[in-house]
Amino acid sequence: MLRMELDERDLDSGQKHQKHFERLPSVVESDTEIEKDFERLRIMNLNCHLAVLENDYLYHIALEKSERLKKAFSDVKYICMGGSPKRMYQFAHYIKEVIGLQLPIGVALQNISEESDRYAMYKIGPVISVNHGIGCPSISILLNELIKLIHYAGCKDVTFFRIGTCGGVGVEPGTIIVTSEAVDGMFRPEYRQIVLGKEQVRKTKCDEDLVNDILEIGKVHEDKDGIKKVISGKTLCANDFYEGQGRLDGAFCEYTSSEKMDFLQKCKENGVKNIEMESLCFTGLLNHAKIRGVVICVALVDRLNGDQVVSHDLNIEFQERPFKLVAKYIKKQLEKN
Amino acid sequence: MLRMELDERDLDSGQKHQKHFERLPSVVESDTEIEKDFERLRIMNLNCHLAVLENDYLYHIALEKSERLKKAFSDVKYICMGGSPKRMYQFAHYIKEVIGLQLPIGVALQNISEESDRYAMYKIGPVISVNHGIGCPSISILLNELIKLIHYAGCKDVTFFRIGTCGGVGVEPGTIIVTSEAVDGMFRPEYRQIVLGKEQVRKTKCDEDLVNDILEIGKVHEDKDGIKKVISGKTLCANDFYEGQGRLDGAFCEYTSSEKMDFLQKCKENGVKNIEMESLCFTGLLNHAKIRGVVICVALVDRLNGDQVVSHDLNIEFQERPFKLVAKYIKKQLEKN
Repeated sequence: MLRMELDERDLDSGQKHQKHFERLPSVVESDTEIEKDFERLRIMNLNCHLAVLENDYLYHIALEKSERLKKAFSDVKYICMGGSPKRMYQFAHYIKEVIGLQLPIGVALQNISEESDRYAMYKIGPVISVNHGIGCPSISILLNELIKLIHYAGCKDVTFFRIGTCGGVGVEPGTIIVTSEAVDGMFRPEYRQIVLGKEQVRKTKCDEDLVNDILEIGKVHEDKDGIKKVISGKTLCANDFYEGQGRLDGAFCEYTSSEKMDFLQKCKENGVKNIEMESLCFTGLLNHAKIRGVVICVALVDRLNGDQVVSHDLNIEFQERPFKLVAKYIKKQLEKN
Repeated sequence: MLRMELDERDLDSGQKHQKHFERLPSVVESDTEIEKDFERLRIMNLNCHLAVLENDYLYHIALEKSERLKKAFSDVKYICMGGSPKRMYQFAHYIKEVIGLQLPIGVALQNISEESDRYAMYKIGPVISVNHGIGCPSISILLNELIKLIHYAGCKDVTFFRIGTCGGVGVEPGTIIVTSEAVDGMFRPEYRQIVLGKEQVRKTKCDEDLVNDILEIGKVHEDKDGIKKVISGKTLCANDFYEGQGRLDGAFCEYTSSEKMDFLQKCKENGVKNIEMESLCFTGLLNHAKIRGVVICVALVDRLNGDQVVSHDLNIEFQERPFKLVAKYIKKQLEKN
């Protein structure tokens, strides 16, 4: 018999005020199920408390642990995340075409998390397309709730993609960079989080096989099918767009242009190919949960040549490149199985 | 004559490829203007490079430095920020009613930053209502671009509000907490950022007079006008909703229920009244720029009694409480002037 350290307060949902001991009779009936679940969670380094949480409201994606949830999501294999809601809505439609998913007449894709007003999530057969907002804290919440979702739904072999935009370091705008490893602003390959007053560190390497598979597809389609150059390298993850990335055009800037250039040069020497804002958390959490994931970003600017990102038609074309690359990977995988 | 350390590369917009020396003739004409601007920026601890940036595209809010921008925004006095776009749309309409702004028939409030798809921003006379997304990196971009906006528009005496939701520590759900000082997960009153490979620290105290003014209004309206209790205290700013806040219901949890309770107890002993995810950056950046700002959050849950936040009618009522408090403050200030 397992001993969980949850007390009744922790199981209060705030809404239903059900206490742990009130639920015990039904829980006791399925002790073996709980033990199995506990073991599955333990193997994946996930939160074992989840095995005895009868109710779990995934607040920020507006879904609730239930039999219905299990049925609705058990077929999920690919979770594609990107920053902006509109872009992930477009990706949802694009991947729908690529994998040939047919919807009945009068039926349209709908934002599953509409109610929460935090993330916009679409389900296209085995693919989820969802926006993660800006920065590690924002993607962190989404990853926590999606990992719980795929656990509750009993999904198998799920692959996560972050499809985004970034500043390149010594790479031509429009180049796709596949992250080999995420590093922080001090070039440490570590996702650092303060947990209960202490710093906790997680590794940030991407799945090597997955990176190679993506690079392989990139090579096949290089300079055609709307995909230009695909390279791999380290990604620096900053917690800010301006000072955190050494820009000279933020509201604050207490360094000189040459100090900035020295830093970018140091990035280059450390094997950093691009700078963005979510890869540390994405790789840190997925690595820890033994889930395959990869970060695929297109460079909108070469930071060695400038800071400003300007909205223009070319950017839109650039942003579609990682979409196309990931869609090709997913299609190929689906055809295999 | 000022010497700026910008080189021509830094001024490349990526789109227009205008170089610094190409713009020099017009710049030289208005040397005194630039010197004045430089001085204004220096006094506020802002980026002096901005004085010579002829073009500046505020990418994430889809606005551009221009004479038109100056005219459109010069009257801004209050900037109200909150997490979710829908909530800030509602606040925009609410404050419109409170300050009695009349729009011509057939005219509606419109999201100024629609094009960027990152933030939703509304202007209601002297008030801006804008959503900041989740976490410090997300609010950091918005603050950088808004501080640049009010500088370019020549706004005077602007006050910033973060109106949000939080987990309370030993406070009844529905209580409004006005932040006296933001602290990080180790109780340090410091906003830490990695800039060019080094850690940079900024102080995180809220404006004392502003906090007292808000508390005063809270006292007058306590238990009436839809405002319940208003208190003040330290706010712990976490970079994650789950482990970062000691929750037992995230995807990961490597501590026990009693370790969690010990931590929350420690929060209480340190004067922490609530936990949220943006106050460090909000106070850190505004303090540094000598701009008045305050964080006003309503507790959706008392973390000493539970972890889960559940969507229900009471929450919506709770979320309206800080709206009402801030609206009362703004109305009072506008009537004074």
